Amino acid sequence: MWLQREICLQPRPRGFHLVTDELLRELPELRDFRVGMMNLFIRHTSAALTLNENADPTVRQDFEGWFDRAVREDEPYYRHQDEGADDLPAHLKSSLLGASLNIPIRNGRLALGTWQGIWLCEHRNHGGSRCIVATLQGE
Amino acid sequence: MWLQREICLQPRPRGFHLVTDELLRELPELRDFRVGMMNLFIRHTSAALTLNENADPTVRQDFEGWFDRAVREDEPYYRHQDEGADDLPAHLKSSLLGASLNIPIRNGRLALGTWQGIWLCEHRNHGGSRCIVATLQGE
Amino acid sequence: MWLQREICLQPRPRGFHLVTDELLRELPELRDFRVGMMNLFIRHTSAALTLNENADPTVRQDFEGWFDRAVREDEPYYRHQDEGADDLPAHLKSSLLGASLNIPIRNGRLALGTWQGIWLCEHRNHGGSRCIVATLQGE
Repeated sequence: MWLQREICLQPRPRGFHLVTDELLRELPELRDFRVGMMNLFIRHTSAALTLNENADPTVRQDFEGWFDRAVREDEPYYRHQDEGADDLPAHLKSSLLGASLNIPIRNGRLALGTWQGIWLCEHRNHGGSRCIVATLQGE
Repeated sequence: MWLQREICLQPRPRGFHLVTDELLRELPELRDFRVGMMNLFIRHTSAALTLNENADPTVRQDFEGWFDRAVREDEPYYRHQDEGADDLPAHLKSSLLGASLNIPIRNGRLALGTWQGIWLCEHRNHGGSRCIVATLQGE
Repeated sequence: MWLQREICLQPRPRGFHLVTDELLRELPELRDFRVGMMNLFIRHTSAALTLNENADPTVRQDFEGWFDRAVREDEPYYRHQDEGADDLPAHLKSSLLGASLNIPIRNGRLALGTWQGIWLCEHRNHGGSRCIVATLQGE
């Protein structure tokens, strides 16, 4: 059994955002899978997906603080600067975090741990709506 | 053909640990898959899974050295500090390394390279037992 | 429907390389999958795969610049130094970027975004040919 659907999220400001509910609202058929896998794939090179803490929002704020220091804007050796100071760092953060997630499905639900949520990592100042291909397979 | 099983590993101290054998011991049915994929998914936000060198243990020690310097404890801008100095860095390291692995299956074995092993990345000082959902599919 | 094939890429110098075309040339059966997933798995611990910008080559040059500064050679605390100064940093970069990609298949093509290409991340000075297991499943 295969289900594939493209979901375009509402635009969000630069930062880390919990999007579990917004994504799962678009995938009601999840409950029909007894066992399987869900892949979420973001079709962009300056945003990413990750799994992390679904409760305290200060974790997401601290991620922005750390990533902005680890991948600085305006390094003198950067060559790819045409699209603004946030552009090349966004590409780097995107590859550090990754473009896709693979989450097991168990009894009609994602087998996430108690504290795990799905994060959209928006690395551009004005990234617009980000589109994600969700692919579910199982039985 | 689908097989899904939750495996809780023995507790380990902070650091990087080779767990290939402990995991595969719990998955004897692997040998019945001629071709397929195995997903390993860790249900935690302060530990991670990665693939790396399965021989020299100094590689794993050097990883701990590098990650502890790249993601420092007690940065003055951290807001999420309630659970201890190792808490927020553990969340960051978890997302840098990732919560899941996807490894192809070939002729009843994982198609790992000669030097590849499965590592548990334990980022808390006292993380306890970490649980992993293994999902195998194939034919 | 399953297809699994090992593809060994031509050797490349240290750096980030766009390999979408070289890989897809070896997978003509992709067009027969209406819906599915493709996994690419690199069987090495000192190289990696990532998705990023498929146009401007300066992005790939800047990645080399950033990663070489973020993961330095010859740190005094490194213990694993036998195979040269590029060895331990290559292992670290490999785990930061990851050994596998999962890309959805839609109507006989990869559902990549407009700007997404597949990159080989070669972290050794002389890494030689890198082998990748491609596993396609779908219908």
